Amino acid sequence: MASPNTNQEKAGVLGRVLALPKVVKGKVLSICRLTKEIAQDDPRKVIHSLKVGLAISLVSLFYYYQPLYENFGLSAMWAVMTVVVVFEYTVGATLGKGLNRTIATLAAGALGVGAHYLASLSGATGEPILIGAFVFVQAAIASFIRFFPKVKARYDYGMLIFILTFSLISVSGFREVEVLEMAHKRLSTIFIGGSACVMISIFVCPVWAGEEFHYSIAHKLEILGYFLEAFVRVYFTMSKEGESEDNKGDSKDKSFLEGYKTVLNSKSVDDSLANFAKWEPGHGKFRFRHPWDLYLKVGALSRQCAYRMEALDAHINSDIQGSQEMRSTIQEQCSEMCLEASQAFKELGSSIRTMTMPSSSDTHVANAKAAVKSLKTLLQSSSWKETDLLSLIPAATVASLLIDIVEFTEKIADSVNNLATLTHFEVVDTDKSSTKAQQPSQSSPHCECVEPGPKTDSLQLVILIEDSALAVSDSEKSNRV
Amino acid sequence: MASPNTNQEKAGVLGRVLALPKVVKGKVLSICRLTKEIAQDDPRKVIHSLKVGLAISLVSLFYYYQPLYENFGLSAMWAVMTVVVVFEYTVGATLGKGLNRTIATLAAGALGVGAHYLASLSGATGEPILIGAFVFVQAAIASFIRFFPKVKARYDYGMLIFILTFSLISVSGFREVEVLEMAHKRLSTIFIGGSACVMISIFVCPVWAGEEFHYSIAHKLEILGYFLEAFVRVYFTMSKEGESEDNKGDSKDKSFLEGYKTVLNSKSVDDSLANFAKWEPGHGKFRFRHPWDLYLKVGALSRQCAYRMEALDAHINSDIQGSQEMRSTIQEQCSEMCLEASQAFKELGSSIRTMTMPSSSDTHVANAKAAVKSLKTLLQSSSWKETDLLSLIPAATVASLLIDIVEFTEKIADSVNNLATLTHFEVVDTDKSSTKAQQPSQSSPHCECVEPGPKTDSLQLVILIEDSALAVSDSEKSNRV
Repeated sequence: MASPNTNQEKAGVLGRVLALPKVVKGKVLSICRLTKEIAQDDPRKVIHSLKVGLAISLVSLFYYYQPLYENFGLSAMWAVMTVVVVFEYTVGATLGKGLNRTIATLAAGALGVGAHYLASLSGATGEPILIGAFVFVQAAIASFIRFFPKVKARYDYGMLIFILTFSLISVSGFREVEVLEMAHKRLSTIFIGGSACVMISIFVCPVWAGEEFHYSIAHKLEILGYFLEAFVRVYFTMSKEGESEDNKGDSKDKSFLEGYKTVLNSKSVDDSLANFAKWEPGHGKFRFRHPWDLYLKVGALSRQCAYRMEALDAHINSDIQGSQEMRSTIQEQCSEMCLEASQAFKELGSSIRTMTMPSSSDTHVANAKAAVKSLKTLLQSSSWKETDLLSLIPAATVASLLIDIVEFTEKIADSVNNLATLTHFEVVDTDKSSTKAQQPSQSSPHCECVEPGPKTDSLQLVILIEDSALAVSDSEKSNRV
Repeated sequence: MASPNTNQEKAGVLGRVLALPKVVKGKVLSICRLTKEIAQDDPRKVIHSLKVGLAISLVSLFYYYQPLYENFGLSAMWAVMTVVVVFEYTVGATLGKGLNRTIATLAAGALGVGAHYLASLSGATGEPILIGAFVFVQAAIASFIRFFPKVKARYDYGMLIFILTFSLISVSGFREVEVLEMAHKRLSTIFIGGSACVMISIFVCPVWAGEEFHYSIAHKLEILGYFLEAFVRVYFTMSKEGESEDNKGDSKDKSFLEGYKTVLNSKSVDDSLANFAKWEPGHGKFRFRHPWDLYLKVGALSRQCAYRMEALDAHINSDIQGSQEMRSTIQEQCSEMCLEASQAFKELGSSIRTMTMPSSSDTHVANAKAAVKSLKTLLQSSSWKETDLLSLIPAATVASLLIDIVEFTEKIADSVNNLATLTHFEVVDTDKSSTKAQQPSQSSPHCECVEPGPKTDSLQLVILIEDSALAVSDSEKSNRV
């Protein structure tokens, strides 16, 4: 009694079975596409994979060559394990894990041998009980220490290996007579595996966490700069609804306007990169104790800017656009603020990227602040008898958020200047500024590319010095966040 | 010729040496204090540490008892290793790691034995070369697969163990004759260690990642609710400067006003808890396939609220407070919006916490929206001839941010309602609402605790249905963030 339903079901199952090769083909194709994408996006990932293969193959030589094997025997396995577990994408992560593993093995090995010796004094029945107690107490204490915030951040892996080695040495010591030799073999194979990792990760196409962190912070500032630029273009042309749709640069602007989203949740990535970077030796332009905490501060400030940009973005996509009159009134000053802040962000970003002293960012910040001041004067002086307040709110909010952003621009500029002084960024623009000093007539506060001439400079310098004192205390406050 | 400087230096060094015991004592004391804090803050961390000790001691029994040792020999070490590496704080993390490790060992073990067999066919000289090639290719491919985002999120540890086991089996197979037996021993000891971890982590005071995640989302909503409540108290009393300082609830309000900061950067914690929760079997009120992604959505929306609260918070601490007149004009409606949204957040939070249907949150959202509407009407109708626009901006921005927050409240209420329906939250308020139906005279849209009577309900229901359709498409959009 095959009802139409069962028939349909059968047909469905049959269809699905027949479609299986197609589905599998689709899956395989999508995996291939993903592989290609990742490889094209960052070829260093392919190189990293080959490096891991190389390191493991190198270390497994211990097994193949008789003389090496005779020395280490089965313990050579630990070298392979170490390579697999310790080899990470960046040099800092590899070094951190390798050092953690080596030092923890050393410490736990010594303690394990001691525990074994103590336990062996207590006779055949007492020994397993005492060793069991040692292992229990040690594992419990070390597991608890892993919850300490500072330990968790930098030495978590070391604590894990401490528990592991202590347990292994003291427990297997119960059976093996030559505990000392075992501990020695374990330590030396781990050392060999660890140094193979570190060597390969440093000398074969290294990926430095510090460098990654450095460029990621520069990139973040540039993203903020591009957002503001695109915001001006989109927000102040939105009035002529149709035009904005057909706008040529629209898709580019759209991607610029979404950039801030990558900044919003960047804290955990920043923290881990800074942590890895601290393990790294001096490399390229970075010394051993490069002030990575300053980068963290710039990162935190740029996230606070990004929060404001989220609120701004909502105003672009909002249905209620408010008074067109109000918007066109504030357009000039707001555009100026945006463009100057945008220039400052881009300048600061490229200053970090190239490690050169920011030459014009202070001027841009001062211009943005001047625009804020002139906006405030404008708003104070204009009369708004006709318009209802509700329609003023969207534009007022945008203005207020932009004022906030200009404030953060100043704080960020301050932090970057601080960084530039501390790490001796290169000074490149001495002759550039002298040529500018000769043509003060060309300078204009509305021009994005040319800095204002020396006449405004001295005044701005005073403003900047006053403000930077303020900004320091402010940024200290925000640092507690 | 001891100059005064050298003498001072000597005295300094001596002083430091003499001060050493004091410094050590201080350090020890601060560590003790930290330990006590962590233990008091979350006693489950102490229990977790004891559980780790217990698991390792249990597994090391393999070494102590002759019959067990005869079966496994030195491979018993793998059981200890597995326990140390796999045992995590939450059940989900332990299960995820345990399953990853077991399955990866199984797969890589089978492949490793196969590779060993293939290589052994090629004679004494070809064997090491072929095995080396296999290991290299396998390690490189698996390392690359670890970069796939989906694999990285859930199976990263499995891929690591895959590389490890394949290398160990195929490499040490070159020396040991009984590869199959070795693979078998490794697999069974890992299985024993893994199941010991899972058993202890499930049956001895379990810490479920799902439960943690569930309560953390509820807590987040409550934090947002308390912020809004405190904001009303602080912002609208700030006018009378002195009063706010002496305010009794000030320190409490201050901590409420800083709560949102824990929400800002909660994405990575949310993601990992959701990931762990997905590994967990059904427990307590949670089924196996509990819709954790909905929790992630609520988390993302609450972060967007928190971004707005950052901007609001800046207005509390800002020097420019703007027109007092404007502020007191919008005070009633804004307070209403805040308090209703706050009630909605707290109700939604406690609804998640207790897993009961949110009873009055929809009413609170509707009230908040009504307050938004009346604020808009007020702003449209009032005339502001005297005031300059600049002094209006701070209050206008606060109003605009609060309107944004009310919108998000609605979206969050929608998501929570969705969650409540999907996971069959308990309905508790049937008799409560019937008693309320009998006393409609008591209901008032301004009362925080009593829901409006049935007369308003039908109208609000229509508004809610209309808006929820909107909110769904909106929240889909925000989900793409």
